[in-house]
Amino acid sequence: MKLQFLGTGAGVPGRIRNVSALVLKLLDEINEIWLFDCGEATQHQILKTTIKPRKITNVFITHMHGDHIYGLPGFLSSRSFQGGEGPLTIYGPPGIRQFVQMTLKLSKTKLLYKLKIVELDPNGGSINLDKGWKVDYLPLEHGVLSFGYRITEPDSVGELLVDRLAEYKIPNGPIFGQIKRGEQVTLADGTVLNGKDFVAPDHKGKVVTILGDTRQCNNIHQLAQGANVLVHEATHDSSEEKMAHAYFHSTNQQAAKVALKAGVEQLYLNHISARYLGQDVKELEKGAQSIFKQSKVVFDLEEYDLNSLN
Amino acid sequence: MKLQFLGTGAGVPGRIRNVSALVLKLLDEINEIWLFDCGEATQHQILKTTIKPRKITNVFITHMHGDHIYGLPGFLSSRSFQGGEGPLTIYGPPGIRQFVQMTLKLSKTKLLYKLKIVELDPNGGSINLDKGWKVDYLPLEHGVLSFGYRITEPDSVGELLVDRLAEYKIPNGPIFGQIKRGEQVTLADGTVLNGKDFVAPDHKGKVVTILGDTRQCNNIHQLAQGANVLVHEATHDSSEEKMAHAYFHSTNQQAAKVALKAGVEQLYLNHISARYLGQDVKELEKGAQSIFKQSKVVFDLEEYDLNSLN
Repeated sequence: MKLQFLGTGAGVPGRIRNVSALVLKLLDEINEIWLFDCGEATQHQILKTTIKPRKITNVFITHMHGDHIYGLPGFLSSRSFQGGEGPLTIYGPPGIRQFVQMTLKLSKTKLLYKLKIVELDPNGGSINLDKGWKVDYLPLEHGVLSFGYRITEPDSVGELLVDRLAEYKIPNGPIFGQIKRGEQVTLADGTVLNGKDFVAPDHKGKVVTILGDTRQCNNIHQLAQGANVLVHEATHDSSEEKMAHAYFHSTNQQAAKVALKAGVEQLYLNHISARYLGQDVKELEKGAQSIFKQSKVVFDLEEYDLNSLN
Repeated sequence: MKLQFLGTGAGVPGRIRNVSALVLKLLDEINEIWLFDCGEATQHQILKTTIKPRKITNVFITHMHGDHIYGLPGFLSSRSFQGGEGPLTIYGPPGIRQFVQMTLKLSKTKLLYKLKIVELDPNGGSINLDKGWKVDYLPLEHGVLSFGYRITEPDSVGELLVDRLAEYKIPNGPIFGQIKRGEQVTLADGTVLNGKDFVAPDHKGKVVTILGDTRQCNNIHQLAQGANVLVHEATHDSSEEKMAHAYFHSTNQQAAKVALKAGVEQLYLNHISARYLGQDVKELEKGAQSIFKQSKVVFDLEEYDLNSLN
């Protein structure tokens, strides 16, 4: 499981940061990539990575502001043009269907794959996906409806290590079940095997929380509680808390406080204003780290391997 | 008068060429810039130039395909965000109003300037702009309605060279008019002045023809006739003339033949497929030059000064 940031800026594209988009790479897990938000030129950012658009199966839109959706028609078209034939589903706030259907229709764009658009309940809800993956979402506070998403990987029970068992030439039968359950068994030749030695450890599914633009509100905590990873906007620095509130945004230290209180492992700060450059960015990061050590201000195209987390 | 190409590729953005957009810079003439087409990430390309979005007063859209319009909502929003307060007019095919209004409305975007949208007559027509500038347009052949634009600068009568006249201390009166008309006058002290020496030469307005995507058709010739500059698409090379026709596009040599027949001074070839790289581009250019010497395959961000043309 990897997280790659495609656009980490706020509002308008700048020379350093593009507008919002990031991908959750689930290639090892389910051979899929999920895209969160799709600001203008997200497909251009993808060109600079190893991401294959056809691997993107789900798109989650946090809110309808232009810097989060204007790249969607182009991304959808190019995915088709580049041979993407597998279905794609877009989840987002009411309005996303009209936006996508109208832009494609007026530009006479025909997609060669099945596109499904799901407008989510403004009050929040839960999306149950294939293979036990789940995405819970709740509304945040951003002046317009803005969702936070909490992605939960299914827990997996340790699998039977068939290779390791092979040398014992165990006949088909109930013994396999006993070993898989971790029980102790005695083979016909008297050999005693401890099931636990032949079963991989259980794997607790990871939880990744990705928020849309928001000022501080209770639902943030509910979405972030105990997550391995929290992606939280930090449009302002801590000196601008009032302005952040007025403009429905958050500060670096507000985000860090959320991470601390929710007990997350790693906090990634994105949606960084173009005003913050060089040393200012380091200060933004340090300010967050002073409250929650595992804070990181992310940049476009940076990729993080989440497998190292617990 | 300058022409700068912002996106010279075809269909989808690639590593070398972005999708369609170009600007006609009329800064010395009327302190305006006109944008032709606005594919996705046109505003990102603008960031790499000296162009100030607030200087862009007119946008001309050739046709509604995504690679020519998907950058429009973002460009319009950012122009406002960056302090553009002067009015802007968009000219384009029917459908462009709905596209712009709906994308801005659904994204809750409020522009701080007056936006006017003019849907053009599918049969062609003429747009009379301030200060005598004129834009004629005609439909081409592209499967969807695609316009070609012919921009005509007003002719200007040579102005009186006031500085040169100063030393003669001419009193106010009808003598100024006589000199301006190029007549010979005799001053009170007997000095004879030839009006022609004190008047700048007349300036014939330039004609620039910018085509949308098209296969060969009669209207191309009408738009290009006697133009100083012709911007013509060359999606295919000359070996693919049949395919070009089938897909409503043109080849490099078809464009060169148009330039030759229309007697233009300079041909710029754009809308180049991403298949053509390195030496292939040179071949594309050479193929056109073998028919019309002043042919040039253009690249993103290249700028051409049109003042050197007649």
